[in-house]
Formats: sequence, C-alpha cells, structure tokens
Amino acid sequence: MDVERISIIEDFVPKDDDALLKKAKAYQPQLLETTVRPIAAYRMTEGNKDCGMPIALDALSKQAFGAGDSVCLDFGSHWVGYCTLKVGFVGSHPDAPAYLKLQFAEVAGELDEDAETYRGWISKSWIQEEHLHLDRVPGELHLPRRYAFRYLKITVLDTSKKYRVTFDNIVCRAVSAVEQSSVSPLRCGDPLLDRIDAISLKTLADCMQEVFEDGPKRDRRLWLGDFRLQALINYRSFRHRDLVRRCLYLFAGTRFPDDRIAACIFTDNEATADDTWFSDYALFYPIALEEYLREYEDAEVLHDLSELAVLQIDRALASCENGVVSQAFSDAAFIDWCPGLDKAACAEGVLLYALPYAIVLANRMHDAKRAEHYAAELALHRAAAKRRYWNEKQRCFVSNEQVSPAAQIWMVLGGVLETDEAAELLSRIPQAPTDYPMVSPYMHHYYLEALLATGMQDVALAHLKAYWGSMVERDADTFWEIWNPDAPDASPYGGTIVNSWCHAWSCSPAYLLRSGAFSD
Amino acid sequence: MDVERISIIEDFVPKDDDALLKKAKAYQPQLLETTVRPIAAYRMTEGNKDCGMPIALDALSKQAFGAGDSVCLDFGSHWVGYCTLKVGFVGSHPDAPAYLKLQFAEVAGELDEDAETYRGWISKSWIQEEHLHLDRVPGELHLPRRYAFRYLKITVLDTSKKYRVTFDNIVCRAVSAVEQSSVSPLRCGDPLLDRIDAISLKTLADCMQEVFEDGPKRDRRLWLGDFRLQALINYRSFRHRDLVRRCLYLFAGTRFPDDRIAACIFTDNEATADDTWFSDYALFYPIALEEYLREYEDAEVLHDLSELAVLQIDRALASCENGVVSQAFSDAAFIDWCPGLDKAACAEGVLLYALPYAIVLANRMHDAKRAEHYAAELALHRAAAKRRYWNEKQRCFVSNEQVSPAAQIWMVLGGVLETDEAAELLSRIPQAPTDYPMVSPYMHHYYLEALLATGMQDVALAHLKAYWGSMVERDADTFWEIWNPDAPDASPYGGTIVNSWCHAWSCSPAYLLRSGAFSD
Repeated sequence: MDVERISIIEDFVPKDDDALLKKAKAYQPQLLETTVRPIAAYRMTEGNKDCGMPIALDALSKQAFGAGDSVCLDFGSHWVGYCTLKVGFVGSHPDAPAYLKLQFAEVAGELDEDAETYRGWISKSWIQEEHLHLDRVPGELHLPRRYAFRYLKITVLDTSKKYRVTFDNIVCRAVSAVEQSSVSPLRCGDPLLDRIDAISLKTLADCMQEVFEDGPKRDRRLWLGDFRLQALINYRSFRHRDLVRRCLYLFAGTRFPDDRIAACIFTDNEATADDTWFSDYALFYPIALEEYLREYEDAEVLHDLSELAVLQIDRALASCENGVVSQAFSDAAFIDWCPGLDKAACAEGVLLYALPYAIVLANRMHDAKRAEHYAAELALHRAAAKRRYWNEKQRCFVSNEQVSPAAQIWMVLGGVLETDEAAELLSRIPQAPTDYPMVSPYMHHYYLEALLATGMQDVALAHLKAYWGSMVERDADTFWEIWNPDAPDASPYGGTIVNSWCHAWSCSPAYLLRSGAFSD
Repeated sequence: MDVERISIIEDFVPKDDDALLKKAKAYQPQLLETTVRPIAAYRMTEGNKDCGMPIALDALSKQAFGAGDSVCLDFGSHWVGYCTLKVGFVGSHPDAPAYLKLQFAEVAGELDEDAETYRGWISKSWIQEEHLHLDRVPGELHLPRRYAFRYLKITVLDTSKKYRVTFDNIVCRAVSAVEQSSVSPLRCGDPLLDRIDAISLKTLADCMQEVFEDGPKRDRRLWLGDFRLQALINYRSFRHRDLVRRCLYLFAGTRFPDDRIAACIFTDNEATADDTWFSDYALFYPIALEEYLREYEDAEVLHDLSELAVLQIDRALASCENGVVSQAFSDAAFIDWCPGLDKAACAEGVLLYALPYAIVLANRMHDAKRAEHYAAELALHRAAAKRRYWNEKQRCFVSNEQVSPAAQIWMVLGGVLETDEAAELLSRIPQAPTDYPMVSPYMHHYYLEALLATGMQDVALAHLKAYWGSMVERDADTFWEIWNPDAPDASPYGGTIVNSWCHAWSCSPAYLLRSGAFSD
C-alpha cells in the first residue's frame, strides 16, 4: 500500500469472540527446532566491503577481530530463528566492553545497504541490525530476538587497544511449525521446476510459525490475502491442518466491530485485529474457508465460521450499485503493490471470482436460497462488468481510463469473457507496454491462475519458469515479496533494505506444480 | 596514561593464589538496592536539542513520542544501577517494532555530545548508549546492563506511521555496597564544605560495588591508586571493613608472575590481574595495608599480606642506583593525567612517601632489621633526591629540565625539604605559570596532603574550597575524574564523552574534613 493509504481508525476496538479465539489458541502449533551452523565465513576489511576473504570454518575461532573488522557468516540457506555465539579474546584481558554491530540479511545485497540512509515510509525498525555491548569478554551472546536470514555480518565497532575479539560456536536455533524434509521432493523431470518447487516449500516452511506469517522478516504476521495462498500450498505439501484452522479462527475471532474481517491479525501479545480492511482480502475469507472444507469436510468449522464468511460476500454485494462495486470498495482493495494502479476493475474481478466459492459454501450451509441469490448476482455483475470495463475498440478492459495487466487478469478470473476471448486477451499481455506492471509474485500467481483457467497451460508453465526462474537465477533461497525483473531494485517502501526476501505469497508454484495444473 | 603507554604484555599469565582469592571472595559484599524514579522530565524535539519542555511526571505516560522525538529524564542525582520502563502506545496497534536510542549521562553535557564523532583512543564501547528494538509493544524494557547516570534520554528512532510510543514506570534499581544515609552529614558550619563532603560521600558510595571501583561508568574496576584513597575515606565514613579486606586480598591473590602487584584487577569473570604495572601504584599497596592495620589491628591480614607488601618496597629499592629510582621505574609511574609530565622526581617522591609506612609495617612484622634498612634507605634517597632534583637557582625541583607542580608536591611529600622550605616552595605553586598543571582531583589530593604536611592548613582549606567548589558550582552530583578549571573540556582520552564524572579518587575531601586535618 502507498503511505497515504495506511489505515488508521481512531479508537478502533476489535470485536472479539472469546470462544473462537479459544479454539484458535488450541490449534497453536508447537514449533520444531533445528540447529544450524554457518557453512562459510568471510573476513571483511574496512573500505573493501564487497569482497570478503574466505576463512576456513574450523579456523574461525583463531581469527582475531579489532575495531572496523567484520566477518560475514553464510548459513547456507534461509532460516528463521535465534542466534547465539561465543565471544572470546586475543591479547590482554579485556579492559572495556566489546561493542558489536550485527546485521542479519536474507539476501547478500542487504549487507551492502546502509541502514542510516534508509528514508522509506515503512518503519526502519524492521531492518535486522543490532548494536550490542558485551560487558564480559569472554562471554556468550544470546540474542533474544528472532531473525530471518541467511547471512550474519558481525562488525567490531570497538574493543580496546588491549584486546581483539574472537567468535566461536555461532549457532542458529531455527524454528518452524513444519520440517521441509517431511515433504518428498517434486522430481518432475525438469530440474528448474524441481528447484522452484523446493524453494517454494522452503519459503512456505519459514513462514509457518505460530501463524502463517506473510514474511518472517517483516511484517511477521497473518495477512488474509497471503494466507489464502499459503493454505493452498500447505494442502499439497505439509498438510498442517491445525495451522490453517487456527488462522481461520483467528480471523473470525477478532474482527471489525461491524463483522468485516480484518486484512491482518496481530498475535504478538493477545490476538488482535488490525484496523486495516482490504475489500479484496475480505473476500478471500469465504474462498479460503471453502477450500479448507473441500480438503477436510469439517462440520465444526463450517458451523462456526461459514456465516461470517458469507457475510463478507453480502457486505460486498450490498455496497454495489447496478452490479458494480463502489469506488470506496475498490479504493479499499489491495490487488498489488504497483503504484498508481486503478483498482476498480480488479476489485470487481475479485468479487466475481469469490462468488462461485460463495455459492458452494451456501450449498454446504444448506442455504439454497442464498446460493441462488449469489448465482443471480454473479450473472448480473458479470454483465455489468463487461459493459462498464470492456473497451471494444482497444479490445481490453479499461478501468477509469487505465489499462493494466491486473485489470485484464481479474476480469478473466471473474469469468467476464468467454474462454477463447479471454485466452486471446491474456496472450497479448506480455507484449503490451504498460506503466502498471505486475510487481509481486502474488499478482503473478493470479496471472498464472488466469492462464490456466483459459486452457493456456503451456504459456502458464513458460511464465512460471521465466518469472520464478529469474529469482532462481539470482540465487534465491526463498521467493521474494517484490520482484519485477525489469526493475530489480524496486521497493514499494522506499528502500529494498526493508523488502521481505522470504514471502509466502510468492511460493504458489509448489501448489500449481503439485496440483497437476500444467498437465493437459 | 597516553595511548602509547598502554601496557600490553604478550602471553601474560597472572600468578594466582587460590587461598587468598578465596578470602577475597568471602568478603564480597551483598549489594544494597534502592528504587529511584525520575524527579523531572523534559520533552525534546529534533533541531532544538538543548532546551527541553518540562513535562509533569504524572502526565508523562500520556505523552506520545514518534520518530525523532525524545524525552530526557532527570533522576535527581547520580545513581548506579539497572533500569526498567514500560513502553505503551497511542494510535493503532503497533505494526512494527519500536526502535529506541537510550543515552545514559552522568552529567547533562554528555547528552550534547555525539558518540558518532568520538575518535579518542579509549574504547567508544564505554559510551553509555544503546540502540534497542522492542518487538512487542506494549511491553517492558528490562535493560540488562548497569549504568552510571543522572540523566536518561530516550529518543524514538522509529515506530511506524500507525502508532507512537508512551513511557511509564521508569525505574532505576540503584546498587551500592553501602547506604549514604548510614553516615551522618558533616555539619561543619560551612555550607560549601558540607556540600563538598556530601558529594564526596555520594561519589564514594556509588563507587563501592563488589569492589572499590575507580568509576562506575568507566573502568568499573579496582585500581590500586584509587583504592588507597577510597579506603581512607571509607574509614572516616561507611567503615565497610570487608570491602577493604576483599580488595587487599584481591591485589595479593592475583599478581604479576614476579610478585609485583598489578595496578588493576579485573573481577568481571574470575578475578584476574591486569598486565599493567604502575611503579607508584605498587607502592600504595604497603601504604594501604598499613593504613588498614592502623584501623583494625588484624593479625590474619598482617600474616597473609605483609610479606607481599614489603616486597613492593624491596623491588623498588632494588631497581635504584645510588639512591635514585631508575628511568624504567619512573616511566612506569602514573602520577597524573597531565600530558608530557616528567615523572622522575614524582616517582622518587612516591618511594620516599612510602618508606615511612614500610618502616611501621616492618615493625608490625617484628622485623627490626628490615625497619632499620628502610630507615637507612629513606635517608639515602632523601639526600640523593635533594642533590639530583633541587635547583638552587630556580629554588624548586627540576625533573629532567621540567618544572611541574607534581614534582614539587611529591618531593615535599617525600620529606626532601625541611618544613619551612617546603611551605615556602608550595606557596609559590599557585602563582607559577606551568605547562604541566595538575589535571585530576587525585593529584590535587596530594597537593592538599603536601600543604597539610607543611602546616599550611588555611591554604589547603582554601584550595579545597576553590578546586572542589568549582565542581560544586557547576552542579556536580559526584566528583569528576578529570578537572582543570582552566581547561574544562579537557579529556586525556580524546573526548569528554568517555570521561568518568563519578570517580572515587576525587572524593578525598570527605576524608580530610572528617579527619580534622584543617584544625589548628
């Protein structure tokens, strides 16, 4: 979201349902721990930050580091966890505290950025960097905060003239609700796809903590749009049913006073709904619920949560006039991080996309009347959307005079076009120049969905390999929150140092590949 | 000491005596705790750092602080301890960690200094400043490190656009081996002297921790030259016998391999002698031991420690030629922080000053032969010193062509002149221009001692009031490590931000005032 679009509702008090929150609590997973150690270390000297001199790991504890010296430790892959290390010394007995700077980085590039120069609108408190004094040397450093990282760079800000420090027994206690090794590798015959699948699962595993987190570096919490995709991938991989149930109950258990489902839930202290409502995200609640019930046939969950789920649909429909969503509704949609994107057609598309799920849900609820009502609304909205957004001359959807891939994709996913028309429209997307490109893997996921929905399996697979493959090419250990190969340094936040490089909404390839979506 | 004079002895392994260290351990005090709260708070805004807007303390928790805002808390006096505070929020539920900078300052001026620009030779790790992330807001901040401070400035480095922080229940758990209230105020009739006495005792109390620390901000450990004065003041005030005994045993329990007593002992982990030897400090060991025995008549301590004490004298004498200390010996003397000070005459003076104590100690040991030997050496050295350093034309002591107050003072304290000659010499010190002034209250203490030894009680009292009074005038809560009224911003370290503003070697006025030293 742009900085201007931050939601702040004064005196917001969420409506909490203790019975639902109690169930959410009951499904909270016990985290699994893995001990991880660095696989490589590099010594850096002031003024030559970019290239480090490799140090054999078994010789690391013999290296002494004085003021200005750094060591960069590579933990081999992305991890989420807690670090400890032993700090020893060489020279005279330490006569002053050791003053250390620790930087944790998900990707190597983060280490080249200077936190001091970050001026973006999102909090600099997300930058994973600490300044620490160690009063007793030798001593152990037990860092109390959780970090998401592959690289740990330790810079000695100062010791004293009498001693230098050594580092030993650097360990990360990595945590996740699941173990990646519990899922068999894909082995589809294409090494790139196998790799994309493995990276997807690593990404998902690192985001599976006490809730499905959007990203373990930032924001480290449950977002509804991300959750819907995470749950889908989880069904084809870790099958951690409790974590999905927990999150479904969390969204229902703490919500807007008027029963709208919040875009995001905090679980740092007590579970609390954020005062942020995204119109598209709210519609993913009935979608995610229906997808859960499809997997597990769960009468209790259906009983507890379905009314609230269809209420999200009802509220969206109630805000419409003549089968078209209101401006307030589309303004409140997230869709993608693309600056200036007009969201009217997109938001309409999300509602159209959600209605078929709502119909199935209504039927599960044995509410035929409601199902019929949704079917009628679906037909009405599709026709209205075609009239309002389709431009026959340009042969594409135009949303408030703006043409964007996102609008085409959501109109197609909304079923506004016949399949062959839709396929023809989508086939023009890659060639069409645009000021409003797709910037997140989340949006690219819906592009793939649209391609698959129109029978364009080959194009979808080629795009998956090209787009996610371009992250693999750049040595991604996990998939990224933001990625536009044409603008690799873009950040919606005003600085890539706060971007999240392990972001769950980016790992849907594992779901698609494991669902046989690309088979004829 | 100048940076070039830092002692680093490669592969230094102290000689430890477990029996003595066990006794030192047995005398370790239980620290007393006092809960202290701020007495005033000031809100500061970026760009107007110097003057804060007062906030009523009972309204502080209602004030919200966003990025760039600061609050300065005044705890009313100097304290040594551990801080906790509650961090709450105003606005939406915190969606990012709170990132705070905390600066602890013994004197207000420290807050105006920028730690980033400090380039001195002593470690910047001594600067009492933290950068902290608080992941859970609301939450409690329990700072694990001990600070020495009166002022705590908290600056919000960032929160997020959605919330600002509040501060509440800011508490310092102050620690000391003694309670100042256990000693009656001086009430000598002169308010300035009463105030100087009270500040002296506050300074001493804050330095009385698990050892007599030189300063609780920096270096926070046991130094022999400082200890001798601390023990003296303690005899006239808190009378914490165990702490003196503990420190006497520590110096003896871990020492140089050749039995020299180290200038300083580390007690952060195991007790360990520093690889620093000051020739003058070593001579304060027999002095401090003799002074202890004068107070307490302690056969066990005499038995355990006297041999080692007189050994310091013997080693000093053995290094002399023709009754004059060697250059190596005087180079190894501390004397004062004055840059460029020639220490030959001073070091000689300290030896002469120590010998009478050594004679008494030898008699306590029933070693008449040793006592006679010391008496003979004293006469020999006094005569040699007069010959070598006294310049009849200049009518003062000249140490390697340099004339300094320190040289005059130590020669007088060494008894090189007759009393009336000495008094006449000392009376010229205040008027004489010098490039080598006294810069520490420690040196000024010995100036007072010299004046008192020559019957100049009035001059001594006037100097005490002028010199220590000039710190009182500048609102000292405790007396300072370094103070030259003619160069108030001087620091031997390259920046006043690392100066210690509560330094035990500065609080000897309480000893002198309470000993009746100024009575006729």
